[in-house]
Amino acid sequence: TVVRFCLIEGDGIGPEVSRATLRVLEAVSKRFGIGFEPVLCEAGDEAAKRRGSPLPEETLRKAKEIGIVLKGPVGETAGEVVTVLRRELGTYAAIRPAKTLPGVSPRCGKPLDVVIVRELLEGVYVQTEYVDVVSNSFAVALRVASARETERVARLAARIARGRRGIVSIIHKANVLHGTCGLFRDVAKRVLEEEGVVVEEYYVDAAAALLVRTPERFDVMLTPNLFGDILSDLAAELAGSLGLSPSANVGDKTGIFEPVHGAAFDIAGMGIANPTAMMLAAAMMLDWLGYRDAARAIEKAIEDALASGARTPDLGGNLKTMEFAEEVAKRIEAG
Amino acid sequence: TVVRFCLIEGDGIGPEVSRATLRVLEAVSKRFGIGFEPVLCEAGDEAAKRRGSPLPEETLRKAKEIGIVLKGPVGETAGEVVTVLRRELGTYAAIRPAKTLPGVSPRCGKPLDVVIVRELLEGVYVQTEYVDVVSNSFAVALRVASARETERVARLAARIARGRRGIVSIIHKANVLHGTCGLFRDVAKRVLEEEGVVVEEYYVDAAAALLVRTPERFDVMLTPNLFGDILSDLAAELAGSLGLSPSANVGDKTGIFEPVHGAAFDIAGMGIANPTAMMLAAAMMLDWLGYRDAARAIEKAIEDALASGARTPDLGGNLKTMEFAEEVAKRIEAG
Ligand SMILES: CC(C)[C@H](C(=O)O)[C@@H](O)C(=O)O
Ligand SMILES: CC(C)[C@H](C(=O)O)[C@@H](O)C(=O)O
Repeated sequence: TVVRFCLIEGDGIGPEVSRATLRVLEAVSKRFGIGFEPVLCEAGDEAAKRRGSPLPEETLRKAKEIGIVLKGPVGETAGEVVTVLRRELGTYAAIRPAKTLPGVSPRCGKPLDVVIVRELLEGVYVQTEYVDVVSNSFAVALRVASARETERVARLAARIARGRRGIVSIIHKANVLHGTCGLFRDVAKRVLEEEGVVVEEYYVDAAAALLVRTPERFDVMLTPNLFGDILSDLAAELAGSLGLSPSANVGDKTGIFEPVHGAAFDIAGMGIANPTAMMLAAAMMLDWLGYRDAARAIEKAIEDALASGARTPDLGGNLKTMEFAEEVAKRIEAG
Repeated sequence: TVVRFCLIEGDGIGPEVSRATLRVLEAVSKRFGIGFEPVLCEAGDEAAKRRGSPLPEETLRKAKEIGIVLKGPVGETAGEVVTVLRRELGTYAAIRPAKTLPGVSPRCGKPLDVVIVRELLEGVYVQTEYVDVVSNSFAVALRVASARETERVARLAARIARGRRGIVSIIHKANVLHGTCGLFRDVAKRVLEEEGVVVEEYYVDAAAALLVRTPERFDVMLTPNLFGDILSDLAAELAGSLGLSPSANVGDKTGIFEPVHGAAFDIAGMGIANPTAMMLAAAMMLDWLGYRDAARAIEKAIEDALASGARTPDLGGNLKTMEFAEEVAKRIEAG
């Protein structure tokens, strides 16, 4: 069996963490007999420079044809790359686990273990904006919510919660946005109750503070698009570091898997970037494709490597990116 | 000299923290010879029950006539009360200091000292939403940004920064919202540069993570409406507790002063609520009215009381609300 996927290495530390991740997939190959066929696709700042567009047509065509994308961080043009990719591949939800890994200190004392399920096609991400063409001094953006999208992302949240503690917290701002957030909350609540999970709800501002104070109350957080964007960076950081959290953007048959962190230009090319988030993104890709054991093996190898003290400089260690990759790879190969 | 203001006690712990705050104002009266004339105005859940509206006409009329409102937390109807009050009084900015007080532990190791200056009339708070009337399953909200509002809130941020470290960080999401956040960023940048402060910019998701990781980088954060809502709850919690942070909503000649925290129904009526945020809101009111010394005296008395170990149960102490108020009041009176 062969897994074919688009590989977008991205900018900054992207190529480094991609290489480290390929090393780990090689180990998965050896142990589980899964073949990998990464199809290199350009996107991002570099692509914009070389090809005139951050998301060249060829990349988009291949991504749609293959349907599965493993993507490194992208720099300044990230917005132009990911929002289009997500829309074109119809990835309607981002699944973003924020979990404190063994041997890593949570930022605020309390370990986190939450999964943010973020609606990914609506809200302000429809990117429909109007600017007054005469004065250029007035602008309006649309924020959209539909029952259809809310329903399917809520079903996904319920499915994920059932494999965990069975609690879904709906995050909204329906006290101000009676229409859009009201719809999101009402539809989500109905669906989640149908699905038999425990339903809670929080205003987004309160949720941000409570993630700091009592993160243990949260299991799965179901959020509108932009709220999930903010809360997932926050949760990832609270869990230990933004550098460790992956994201799976999933559609019915498509998926884009990426780290939550950015291109970190300040340390690019130094070979010291932490590749954990990108490796965990690859694990989420395998999980999504049904290779549960292989996915779990990557996660476990990372946990074991970290627990044994192997770590890159961002976590206070002195391993280089590829050295850390070796630590993970050898644990996978050893089985 | 007499300060006349609307007093909205609010719901839950509102009446308790209001009473404690009046005790402190009494002390300010004694020491500084300022007279206070609180005009009791009903608003909130209780008002909705008793008067059929969370913001009775009489309250709105008085608030507009007097122009200065000191407001406790409001419960479920908070959205209906504050958004209308802010619009009607034209309070275009919320000033929200998040500062770690003496003797209070910051939540994540690092003390905070930031001021969030939040645009308060635009964004999604224009509350212009459309719901499909046939299916009820599609909704759109408008998110608005204008050069005029952005400019005046940016000038205010610059003024505040000049009394501090002179840095203003513009918080936006212009990589997705090219129109509205692009306008906000561009206008703010131009104005802030004119004003001669140091200008930085951050995406809102990154800012949330960085408030946890390296809060010392921030001095004044200038934010669109909803981003400020989320980040100010987060910053207040990180500084020590959401229970300690005040907010000044200011217009050209009007002001609404309130705690950032909510009505805390779980401890309402027990006499143990922490009145610090409401007291600090009163201090911001005095400061705004030009009574700098009186404002500073309240702040200092609170800091001294906390530093001496006086604290309510939320901070691990055993003082009741009014006992803590006495600690603060007696320090003001002693001068
Ligand atoms: C780059 C940006 C457009 C993107 C988003 O806002 O979704 C990123 O922050 C993310 O969370 O994946
Ligand atoms: C009650 C709510 C409408 C309000 C807001 O969103 O502005 C509150 O959260 C605040 O921050 O003052």
